[in-house]
Amino acid sequence: MAKPVCLVIGAGAGIGGTVGKRFAREGYHAVLCRRSDEEGLERLVSEIEAEGGSASGHLLNAVKAGTIEERVEEAEAEIGPVEVAIYNLGAQVGDRPLEDTSYKTFELGWRMGCFGLFRLASELCPRMEARGQGTILVTSATAAVRGNAGQHSHAAAMGGRRMLCQTLNAEFAPKGIHVAHILIDGAVDAPDTLGKMLGPERFQQLRETRGLEHDGLLLPEKIADTYFHLAQQHRSAWTHEIDLRSFSDRPWWNH
Amino acid sequence: MAKPVCLVIGAGAGIGGTVGKRFAREGYHAVLCRRSDEEGLERLVSEIEAEGGSASGHLLNAVKAGTIEERVEEAEAEIGPVEVAIYNLGAQVGDRPLEDTSYKTFELGWRMGCFGLFRLASELCPRMEARGQGTILVTSATAAVRGNAGQHSHAAAMGGRRMLCQTLNAEFAPKGIHVAHILIDGAVDAPDTLGKMLGPERFQQLRETRGLEHDGLLLPEKIADTYFHLAQQHRSAWTHEIDLRSFSDRPWWNH
Amino acid sequence: MAKPVCLVIGAGAGIGGTVGKRFAREGYHAVLCRRSDEEGLERLVSEIEAEGGSASGHLLNAVKAGTIEERVEEAEAEIGPVEVAIYNLGAQVGDRPLEDTSYKTFELGWRMGCFGLFRLASELCPRMEARGQGTILVTSATAAVRGNAGQHSHAAAMGGRRMLCQTLNAEFAPKGIHVAHILIDGAVDAPDTLGKMLGPERFQQLRETRGLEHDGLLLPEKIADTYFHLAQQHRSAWTHEIDLRSFSDRPWWNH
Amino acid sequence: MAKPVCLVIGAGAGIGGTVGKRFAREGYHAVLCRRSDEEGLERLVSEIEAEGGSASGHLLNAVKAGTIEERVEEAEAEIGPVEVAIYNLGAQVGDRPLEDTSYKTFELGWRMGCFGLFRLASELCPRMEARGQGTILVTSATAAVRGNAGQHSHAAAMGGRRMLCQTLNAEFAPKGIHVAHILIDGAVDAPDTLGKMLGPERFQQLRETRGLEHDGLLLPEKIADTYFHLAQQHRSAWTHEIDLRSFSDRPWWNH
Repeated sequence: MAKPVCLVIGAGAGIGGTVGKRFAREGYHAVLCRRSDEEGLERLVSEIEAEGGSASGHLLNAVKAGTIEERVEEAEAEIGPVEVAIYNLGAQVGDRPLEDTSYKTFELGWRMGCFGLFRLASELCPRMEARGQGTILVTSATAAVRGNAGQHSHAAAMGGRRMLCQTLNAEFAPKGIHVAHILIDGAVDAPDTLGKMLGPERFQQLRETRGLEHDGLLLPEKIADTYFHLAQQHRSAWTHEIDLRSFSDRPWWNH
Repeated sequence: MAKPVCLVIGAGAGIGGTVGKRFAREGYHAVLCRRSDEEGLERLVSEIEAEGGSASGHLLNAVKAGTIEERVEEAEAEIGPVEVAIYNLGAQVGDRPLEDTSYKTFELGWRMGCFGLFRLASELCPRMEARGQGTILVTSATAAVRGNAGQHSHAAAMGGRRMLCQTLNAEFAPKGIHVAHILIDGAVDAPDTLGKMLGPERFQQLRETRGLEHDGLLLPEKIADTYFHLAQQHRSAWTHEIDLRSFSDRPWWNH
Repeated sequence: MAKPVCLVIGAGAGIGGTVGKRFAREGYHAVLCRRSDEEGLERLVSEIEAEGGSASGHLLNAVKAGTIEERVEEAEAEIGPVEVAIYNLGAQVGDRPLEDTSYKTFELGWRMGCFGLFRLASELCPRMEARGQGTILVTSATAAVRGNAGQHSHAAAMGGRRMLCQTLNAEFAPKGIHVAHILIDGAVDAPDTLGKMLGPERFQQLRETRGLEHDGLLLPEKIADTYFHLAQQHRSAWTHEIDLRSFSDRPWWNH
Repeated sequence: MAKPVCLVIGAGAGIGGTVGKRFAREGYHAVLCRRSDEEGLERLVSEIEAEGGSASGHLLNAVKAGTIEERVEEAEAEIGPVEVAIYNLGAQVGDRPLEDTSYKTFELGWRMGCFGLFRLASELCPRMEARGQGTILVTSATAAVRGNAGQHSHAAAMGGRRMLCQTLNAEFAPKGIHVAHILIDGAVDAPDTLGKMLGPERFQQLRETRGLEHDGLLLPEKIADTYFHLAQQHRSAWTHEIDLRSFSDRPWWNH
């Protein structure tokens, strides 16, 4: 019998890849999509297969027309129903004052942070609706609930993403589709996102002072535990919004 | 001496035009911009002038590149510093299920609801910052804080708008620019928006059952009182977020 | 003809007294109530009378049974209908770790921050309802929307106060009673509250570095402008929640 | 070796008892406390023991001074460290207009909804802090985030409870204590709470039309899955706030 599919849009070496790996371990076929680093992608697929799991990897430029839609279509045609989709594209470009935030950057933030999820939902929800079930887990960020200085592009994108999750939930939850908005409220121990933003030296320093045995950075495999739990929730008790942060970090509302 | 300028993006026969008229009455030159209905625009300018005020009107397609920016530039060059800007473009397209919400509609919502404000701020904030003062009042909607069924385009646009207001406030409030996000949480007695959405008959019926002497629809001239108050607040006690609704209407969080 | 009454619970030399003075200036008789400092109270009444206004002062222990209720009753019987009530009792006791927060302190916070407003509303709302109008303006604090370390008593009290304002609004707005929850999100230039908490030297120092010409502390007379505006809003466009802070201060959601 | 203790304040035949049973199944000794129905309590203990688990039951009047504190003390002295505490006392009294909400009812709401949690935390947090770990899971309700007509007592109590959870989290999360605020946003299929509020006939009718195979009422055993998951979260990825509702129910923010 065909395995259920878990589609991950944004499957880098952080939340996305680790969540994909976790679902593969639980019996899903993971369809892993990321923009670049073919080598890293193949390594991830190999790791999953070495554990006895099943996965396939695709380079996918999510801002290009049709890419997300085709991936859904092909996965459904060639592998099986996408029962779980993880929308994990970030849109963080670091803090930039307004004058250094170009129209292009602002629009790109929206294309990745908001429009891509709309496209995924447009392609996937009718299929899930026909099956009477499905799960869409959306990684989100502090900027979805708070606009901070320098976060013009990111916060506008994420604020839209959060409201989009609520509209999708309002229309599709009663039809059996579980949409969850997961607020990652802190720095993640992820080389592909935080690592690239900080550079290798500062990233390693942060890991040593806050991460590693301090558990002050969110660990992707621990985040994955909660993603998997959400996907298992019974429909009589679904979560739509949940926050995650390290025990030692301040919540977004405190200072 | 030149009058201070109040620039209104979205100056129809509802909140926008009425707020413009109010500021004109208080000594501002109102620069009124709207997409269509040249006749209505001229009537508005004439009414202001008949009251002894000063105004100019411009048809402006806010989703077209450069239009908002040029308007700011010309107003500053030809009339005077834009001391107050009202961003009043709506992006409501009525309730539509996901399958009836095209990519184009979703993108248009963002262009009007979110990107236009970013463009206005990009052009205007550096000028206001150089002067050490300025006010940007942003009309917002229930959908900025709640995604409801059928509101995919609108809520995503408005959620982004709200977070953008917060990022602008975080960067520019300390530089003397007052950014306020005004949550219009109910139906407005406005022929150009609600009237067009409902059609003349249903609109008139609604006015008779809920509006008029019942005060169950938000009256633009009463809304304008609060817009003007916000623009007058002393910088030691600024409001960033405020809601407005009819006494007889349910707040967005109740049901 | 009798003047309308503006009742102020918590009329110290900060927001409460200043708002009372403002309403007196606009034609209301101000009934000013505070727990202690009879001299300061009499001075306030004298200042109002010297400006041609009308006021009376009462020492009132708001946590004592019956006090608030009797004050309403007497004001209505002897002066006139209480058209506006300002509930301005604070419950801030400074930051204290849990182990230094006694049950008594926690309960006192609730009695002043939450139960006192319930008692005021219980006595006043039926009277206002019978008249079909009235306004209750509730001063609130950052702790109403965010629990911070050391704020156990204050945040629990203010969180309850905010939800109580929403329940009162839900029941009484449709009956013509305007309830507004005013979030004072920053330090106020007020000798009776901030001044007492900091002591005279640190208070003066703060005024010199952040307050005075810097406008970095909320000025009571500027806050009063917004209180008065809220009380004047037309019932077609009422505000239930509004925030106020200095332009140079960070909003509660930023850090 | 002694089992870790899971203390449940409010262990009726709904969320509380079911969560206690779940933790017992996972190897905890469940200390089950409820106000009345000794027979039901004994039945619950027997069921747990019949499954091979370990539990003890206590009738406890949570509003009476010292009761919660003594229970913690005794459990720690006689059984073992309380590693998980479930604060599950409700304070719902049904919708009542203000005039039917007595001072006593309002105060009782606070004593059960808010003060009891403060007392539990005052007794338990220093012990957990000394051990460097612990979990406090707080059942909450829609009224914690929204005041609705007739919910004066309940919303004020729950609004305080939510802010108290945030203050506890701010002080104790960095010390290893996981505090989670769990928003139960819908009707629960629970005879002891909803059942008593509606009466047996209306409750059964609701179960038949919305509950049972419709999954339109929250099922306690499914809620318990998420409580247990929260207690297992790694400290690098803790949740402070989460909502739960049936797939077919409207979230509190929609209508």
